Amino acid sequence: MASQDHHDDDGTDDASATSAAAAAVNPSIEQVFKNIEVPPWRKQITFRSVFTSAVLSFVFNVVVCKLNLTTGVIPSLNVAAGLLGFGFVKFYTTLVQKWGMLKQPFTRQENTVIQTCVVASSGIAFSSGTASYMLAMSSRVAAQADVGNAPINVMKLELGWIYGFLFAVSFIGLFSIVPLRKMMIMKYKLTYPSGTATAFLINSFHTPKGAKLAVKQVRALFYSFGGSFFFAFFQWFFAAGDGCGFSSFPTFGLSAFKKRFYFDFSSVYVGAGMICPYMVNISLLVGAVLSWGIMWPLIEQKKGSWYSADLKPTSLHGIQGYRVFLGIATMLGDGLFHVVYMVVVTTASFLARKRSGPKDSSTVKPDEDDESSDSQLANYDEKRRREYFLKDQIPNSGAAVGYVVLAVLSMIVVPIIFQGRLKWYHILVAYLIAPVLAFCNAYGCGLTDWSLASNYGKIAILVFSSWVGLDHGGVVAGLAACGVMMNIVSTASDLMQDFKTGYLTLASPLTMFLSQVIGTAMGCLMTPAVFWFFYKAYPLGDPDGAYPAPYGLMYRGIALLGVEGFSSLPKNCLKLSIMCFFAAIALNILTEVLKHTEKKWRIYRFIPIPMCMAIPFYLGGYFAIDMCVGSLILFVWEWNKKQQAKVFGPAVASGLICGESLWSVPAAILALAGVNAPICMKFASASAA
Amino acid sequence: MASQDHHDDDGTDDASATSAAAAAVNPSIEQVFKNIEVPPWRKQITFRSVFTSAVLSFVFNVVVCKLNLTTGVIPSLNVAAGLLGFGFVKFYTTLVQKWGMLKQPFTRQENTVIQTCVVASSGIAFSSGTASYMLAMSSRVAAQADVGNAPINVMKLELGWIYGFLFAVSFIGLFSIVPLRKMMIMKYKLTYPSGTATAFLINSFHTPKGAKLAVKQVRALFYSFGGSFFFAFFQWFFAAGDGCGFSSFPTFGLSAFKKRFYFDFSSVYVGAGMICPYMVNISLLVGAVLSWGIMWPLIEQKKGSWYSADLKPTSLHGIQGYRVFLGIATMLGDGLFHVVYMVVVTTASFLARKRSGPKDSSTVKPDEDDESSDSQLANYDEKRRREYFLKDQIPNSGAAVGYVVLAVLSMIVVPIIFQGRLKWYHILVAYLIAPVLAFCNAYGCGLTDWSLASNYGKIAILVFSSWVGLDHGGVVAGLAACGVMMNIVSTASDLMQDFKTGYLTLASPLTMFLSQVIGTAMGCLMTPAVFWFFYKAYPLGDPDGAYPAPYGLMYRGIALLGVEGFSSLPKNCLKLSIMCFFAAIALNILTEVLKHTEKKWRIYRFIPIPMCMAIPFYLGGYFAIDMCVGSLILFVWEWNKKQQAKVFGPAVASGLICGESLWSVPAAILALAGVNAPICMKFASASAA
Repeated sequence: MASQDHHDDDGTDDASATSAAAAAVNPSIEQVFKNIEVPPWRKQITFRSVFTSAVLSFVFNVVVCKLNLTTGVIPSLNVAAGLLGFGFVKFYTTLVQKWGMLKQPFTRQENTVIQTCVVASSGIAFSSGTASYMLAMSSRVAAQADVGNAPINVMKLELGWIYGFLFAVSFIGLFSIVPLRKMMIMKYKLTYPSGTATAFLINSFHTPKGAKLAVKQVRALFYSFGGSFFFAFFQWFFAAGDGCGFSSFPTFGLSAFKKRFYFDFSSVYVGAGMICPYMVNISLLVGAVLSWGIMWPLIEQKKGSWYSADLKPTSLHGIQGYRVFLGIATMLGDGLFHVVYMVVVTTASFLARKRSGPKDSSTVKPDEDDESSDSQLANYDEKRRREYFLKDQIPNSGAAVGYVVLAVLSMIVVPIIFQGRLKWYHILVAYLIAPVLAFCNAYGCGLTDWSLASNYGKIAILVFSSWVGLDHGGVVAGLAACGVMMNIVSTASDLMQDFKTGYLTLASPLTMFLSQVIGTAMGCLMTPAVFWFFYKAYPLGDPDGAYPAPYGLMYRGIALLGVEGFSSLPKNCLKLSIMCFFAAIALNILTEVLKHTEKKWRIYRFIPIPMCMAIPFYLGGYFAIDMCVGSLILFVWEWNKKQQAKVFGPAVASGLICGESLWSVPAAILALAGVNAPICMKFASASAA
Repeated sequence: MASQDHHDDDGTDDASATSAAAAAVNPSIEQVFKNIEVPPWRKQITFRSVFTSAVLSFVFNVVVCKLNLTTGVIPSLNVAAGLLGFGFVKFYTTLVQKWGMLKQPFTRQENTVIQTCVVASSGIAFSSGTASYMLAMSSRVAAQADVGNAPINVMKLELGWIYGFLFAVSFIGLFSIVPLRKMMIMKYKLTYPSGTATAFLINSFHTPKGAKLAVKQVRALFYSFGGSFFFAFFQWFFAAGDGCGFSSFPTFGLSAFKKRFYFDFSSVYVGAGMICPYMVNISLLVGAVLSWGIMWPLIEQKKGSWYSADLKPTSLHGIQGYRVFLGIATMLGDGLFHVVYMVVVTTASFLARKRSGPKDSSTVKPDEDDESSDSQLANYDEKRRREYFLKDQIPNSGAAVGYVVLAVLSMIVVPIIFQGRLKWYHILVAYLIAPVLAFCNAYGCGLTDWSLASNYGKIAILVFSSWVGLDHGGVVAGLAACGVMMNIVSTASDLMQDFKTGYLTLASPLTMFLSQVIGTAMGCLMTPAVFWFFYKAYPLGDPDGAYPAPYGLMYRGIALLGVEGFSSLPKNCLKLSIMCFFAAIALNILTEVLKHTEKKWRIYRFIPIPMCMAIPFYLGGYFAIDMCVGSLILFVWEWNKKQQAKVFGPAVASGLICGESLWSVPAAILALAGVNAPICMKFASASAA
């Protein structure tokens, strides 16, 4: 899954492919690294690693911000972060070594620090909600709904309070489940597929043979980065106005274009398509065909009967309402299923452990990557890892004090920021429940690699906005509560994921914790700035513009449901929404049932993912087509040269994503400076031309 | 060289690369083929080979016709012909063999027959002058010049007389120098680089290892063919009107577009650029920059002073006159140099042979490919080749009778066709001089791989049009004489080239002669039909249209110079033309001098070729940019994977050329049927949009 809703899973397959080769050669990884000294934790966080992290954090913040604001589909950037971190520091150390001035060799622990920092900081770019709950408070999004846009339910976005809010709520998640790390990593041996894959990637980089390959990967990344950047630059020249340029290219003809089926030459989404599993991309396409190809045209025939014919096209009481609320219903259905499923699985696995003692992990998927069949070697690995994981301690009392202090701070600051729409006791309740949810999410993520942070956030919107009520600013309150909840839950699972990476690369837990803190701080500093840059340069949230930011209106829609009930929906929309809601649940159940019963063809792999299907409901299929093009490229590549595709595919894809995303910085500067592109590439029908 | 003016050289490097590998493995080629029976000449020309030839002839006729009508730059298609011929028949025989019904195995002699047939027939597509001297007679081209467009100097193009003319003049060349074949091939051992390369290619296909590679090459060709075809199909949808579509893409901005600098997404010319030597493409680009970047803007500043400001933009008395006549002057200068140079070299080598006896070939470049260092093996090869070359005879008396009969036929038919503008004695004079020129050209081509047919044709225009005079239809007469001369001279060197190929593949000379006759007949049948198709569908010769057919106006310009002298030129045009004429000669002399004196860096390789520089004078640089893109692709490919690029480059390039060219058949059908593209992709400046 790679929608905004579970952003930090995945990338697993790709990364583990690279490491699999290394693992095959070295059944015991730590035997290989036996003679390489592990620096003490103070020396794991170096100036060069923090500097590199800052540079990469900036890049990834821009990337994530752009992705958030365009379609909200964010592929895993772990591999790119690991690769680029390695490339940067390796380049620097090789240079310094040539001058004979290298004091400290580049270690895998340092590499882990960079990767943790960058992922933490780009995690903030996601969980800060600048494209979801935060944007949903703005008057621009509020204006699209005809209900609930009184001043009390709108917050003017300002850099000041955004900074305040983020710093108040972003760090607390780090303290929430820190004391449980030994239990989750060492006792239960949770898998954390992404964390494991990243660790293997980093380990393979730092074996002599791995470094050579990594340098080649970095080179491939830079080539595709350059190509993507300059192609975006080239495209800019032809986009002088609305409906101009490559992004309005009616690849499949003008009538398909009107239904938002076209290839828009966005290398970001081609790259994203290469990283996301095939099923994600196909689900997106299926969703697009179902909605824009079948459902919306059918509903539009009822224009004048189901909804008034003279509404603005963006009005939530017209066709747009069906698009938004059917999408929300599908997402809520999918989300609810996963929350319930996760609770069930967690409880079951917990009870099983209780019964059979901690050593046995029969109900849990065994940690295949981690444990070698050669038990002696595996024991050596495990011994070393345990040793280093237990070396430096984070005192539990410190964690508890930190949590309480930060919670109190939030209780004071957040109500001030939201001018009393959210009271201190709302925050208190949130912080009392949060650790439980955080544990639940971190545990589930350890099992399945799915973080359900945004699902908890959506539930928080519903709960808090109906608690506060429309007249007391329930919309803004719900959205703010979503931010509070999402931040804790998402940071907690990220942290645990990183502990796993650290465990496998012998990085100290203290280092991991500190890199998370540093990364979070970087994220809190950069995210609002980057967002502000886009916010000032472009009309964000305009459904037909370059930055539709689909989740803005979606999240506001959820808050409206919370405060208004279903009264705000157009005719038959509730009925259809309920159908979508249950269809999503049914589809998930079907998948799970097939997964456990039908093992021969494994048909469950071909069932589309509802969460993915829902995104194009609102946006249309153009980015799904981009992503399917990415899938196609990867498919052909794998068909011809499987090994090459496995090793270089993720690097090329990351380059494609980062290149075009980074071009959006100069593009935004040009837009701010009022520099217009010189040419308009227009597409007119032959009869009109 | 790959301009229309010496179309059948080249392809040498590419083809010989493939064969070089085979040659390295097998120092004696005929030892390898020792046990494979050579069929008698009657069995070398099979039904399947003639059928395949007909299919491929059609494809190549369309390709050459399209190339002629767009820019006139025609790369060597020998490799594509050899490859596709092999692919077709191999596919057929493999299929038939599986059914157990194969009566006769596929031999290299058969492959040579196909290749000869196809090259002969596409040779007619070129020497029929449908885009040069023939088109130049039409009223459409005549209207662009303000002088010499009285009815007597214009011929309405009609399918009937074109067929008559072609059949009357195309076969005679085959008889002109047939008796000299033993002298040229066996005694003087002329190289004929293209012929040799083609023979090696065919030989390598038919060695067991070669066939495997050839099948892979054919596959690569088909992939790029398909890609090119569908990309052209895709482009069609966006070209609803003039100035619409990819062919008007202002890649480098609108002001560069106005000066005809843009990439027009034509895979034909990207492919052509991949086949032509780097220097050809760079020369084209240099010519474009010099003319459209520097000279024309300077001359346009004199508008109103050097030429009247209120002329039509296509008038030859305005800026267009400078473009055409400076181009002609450059070409004539280059052509004259090469004719003189060739006469000098031919005479010198002839005299040297006379002095030192026929066995010594010290002044001639030794036939490196042909003669192995192991003299015994080489002797075996040579013995076999001589044996088969002498086996079947073409009686000299038959050749002489054929020549005389065809000449008399022409003398009767041609004056009737041109309604007395050209008298029987004009034709007689032409046919008396022609065999000498034909020998000269065939001998020179054997040494250098350059056929100067179109240069002889241009000289014929000047001579005959001034002989006949303006008032007696000198323009048409000159152009027709050009056709008579060009056909003989070009067919003669093609035939000798094919004798060489036949010699090296043990194909009988009689077979070669007959395949040439068959191929020529195919060409005479197909070329006018294909041309007529384009002529009816599009406004050919419109300088701003899709089919500017640059040589049409160029050739008419030469004829106008012949009948009018220099009086028709705008102010200072004569002065500048003379400068261009001598600059072209000087550049050639410089190249030759450097070639013989400076051996270290071989700077002569970096001197642009005047003939190539002259083409963009009239057309602008867009196709030069396409071709440079092709060069760049090949360069990068060779840089990364030299061997792969050498083997597959020509196949991919041929596919690119054939795919888009073949799309022009359905496109022309659509145009004839009045079906318009649905979308117009337009490019407007931002201020206008």
